[in-house]
Amino acid sequence: MLKNPLFLDALQGKEVQRPPVWMMRQAGRFLPEFRALRDKYDFFTRCQTPELAAEITLMPVKRFPVDAAILFSDILVVPQAMGMPFQMKESVGPYLQNPVSSLEDIEKLQNTPVEESLGYVFKAIDITRELLNDEIPLIGFCGSPWTILCYAIEGKGSKTFDKAKSFCFKNPEWAHLLLQKITDYTLQYLLKKIEHGVNAVQIFDSWGGVLSPADYEEFSWKYSNQLVEALADKIPVIVFGKGCWFALETMSRSKASALGVDWTITPQKARELTGGNIALQGNFDPAKLLSTPDKIYTEVQQMIRDFGVQRYIANLGHGILPNVPVENAEAFVKAVVEFKR
Amino acid sequence: MLKNPLFLDALQGKEVQRPPVWMMRQAGRFLPEFRALRDKYDFFTRCQTPELAAEITLMPVKRFPVDAAILFSDILVVPQAMGMPFQMKESVGPYLQNPVSSLEDIEKLQNTPVEESLGYVFKAIDITRELLNDEIPLIGFCGSPWTILCYAIEGKGSKTFDKAKSFCFKNPEWAHLLLQKITDYTLQYLLKKIEHGVNAVQIFDSWGGVLSPADYEEFSWKYSNQLVEALADKIPVIVFGKGCWFALETMSRSKASALGVDWTITPQKARELTGGNIALQGNFDPAKLLSTPDKIYTEVQQMIRDFGVQRYIANLGHGILPNVPVENAEAFVKAVVEFKR
Repeated sequence: MLKNPLFLDALQGKEVQRPPVWMMRQAGRFLPEFRALRDKYDFFTRCQTPELAAEITLMPVKRFPVDAAILFSDILVVPQAMGMPFQMKESVGPYLQNPVSSLEDIEKLQNTPVEESLGYVFKAIDITRELLNDEIPLIGFCGSPWTILCYAIEGKGSKTFDKAKSFCFKNPEWAHLLLQKITDYTLQYLLKKIEHGVNAVQIFDSWGGVLSPADYEEFSWKYSNQLVEALADKIPVIVFGKGCWFALETMSRSKASALGVDWTITPQKARELTGGNIALQGNFDPAKLLSTPDKIYTEVQQMIRDFGVQRYIANLGHGILPNVPVENAEAFVKAVVEFKR
Repeated sequence: MLKNPLFLDALQGKEVQRPPVWMMRQAGRFLPEFRALRDKYDFFTRCQTPELAAEITLMPVKRFPVDAAILFSDILVVPQAMGMPFQMKESVGPYLQNPVSSLEDIEKLQNTPVEESLGYVFKAIDITRELLNDEIPLIGFCGSPWTILCYAIEGKGSKTFDKAKSFCFKNPEWAHLLLQKITDYTLQYLLKKIEHGVNAVQIFDSWGGVLSPADYEEFSWKYSNQLVEALADKIPVIVFGKGCWFALETMSRSKASALGVDWTITPQKARELTGGNIALQGNFDPAKLLSTPDKIYTEVQQMIRDFGVQRYIANLGHGILPNVPVENAEAFVKAVVEFKR
């Protein structure tokens, strides 16, 4: 029913004439219209006002011929709904007043029905779908249980998340209890998103790359894969594990429809590790969008040749940076849309 | 002439009964005696007073049966000597008042003879060697030219060094000029360290992992390898590229004696990528030293079995964390020293 089904075709392994394209954080600070809106409404107002979230989601769609929209939201709305309130601190980022530090903290987490705690997200999906008018698909997303645990325990961002990691290494039973609670709640959240009509979901494992392969298996993939298993029959699921090249082989044997990769792995190596039997998404270095439109255009087309046109979604290897000139982002999208086999 | 040649034996590929062991940042904040000294002397006093630097270098050697000492210093003494002064800011870390941002900035960098600008380091080596009394080898170190460029341009630490990267992507000629200047100065510095009797050198490429494989080749390895080529006939060189698993294969074909690896790669995979023909060093997750001595002991012995005893140096996958209990670090070293084939 979608007028442009390219993104879903690539996820389903159908033959395509060119790869679909979207950009992680495409509805973000690099857009002047986003910054204007940000000056008027704070972070929580933007996330929790469905009309605003929908308006922001559409911003990049109006500017660029992207093949998918991604709902404007934040991965931390899930822990927030579970009773871990956070603030957005200037130059610190997310900041939890009361990070999890004990079994008691984990046991007292709330299990409010998602319709109540996250109704504003589902409302935003309804409005966005109406505005999108079946032109392109809408992606819903969540953080991986591991990545949410990182923030829940560390209380804020970190380069290495050593506090979160040592919590898990010292108290593995507590860690697993917390991860399971996050997983269960996230699953309810994603199921409800699907009910409201998102066309695909992406799990962001932004901090999986701080773990060893064995610890990744135990503390991250085990739980992300529960989500994949529970959803794969209903909808295409994309798993993006930043820095998780070491788990690509394992993940490629799952029911996920696509795996996101970052730029620290070559397209050839990523294909090799995933055996060519799953779609890949990525992996342009976001910092390269700070070079020139010409250079971007050439390098993006080379990236497509390196990944191959089939079972491939052109994207960045991480979120777009706030200081990227709009014409550079445009060159990125254009290079994909104009790609000739 | 060394009473304990185990570390050098492993670097030279000689057969050993057990692997040698040391810990990155072993002369650091986790030691109560270091913290006591830190309360009396600031960062620069500690680095620039040869007697203090030597005293700190010996601290872990007195506590643990490590097989190598590493000179207490900082990778940023090199850019400092080239005319890029920095401060140590509380909770920020290194901070350069005037980061490099133009060709003019690069052209005006100084080329003072290292004897003048870094004499305090060579004096510290002399004193340390006297105190070590030929018991164990002394490692000298430097930052990789890429990692030094990251600080020179960014002006401080960063998760992603996007400013440094986009500088290189926008102005590759300037970047190469700067990298060559850093390389040349670093080479003078290392040659003088060797003259003063260090037994091995380690190049820390702490930020190589933010680059794509092709950019790593162009902006990092090309310059680290100049150092390797210039020094390998004189002394064993260890290259530690944090997050640089993708370059292990290339680096294993160089004249380096050993490659450091972090914990995001399994020992088996690291051996596979390096073809078994170079010593490897690493790769215990520093956050695991926050678990219990028993667990550490068991996991370290497993790590040795996974890497194999020959051509292997037991170490962490990154610097030891400040909050590691001394008895846990002790368990790490003990597990290696007591390892039975």
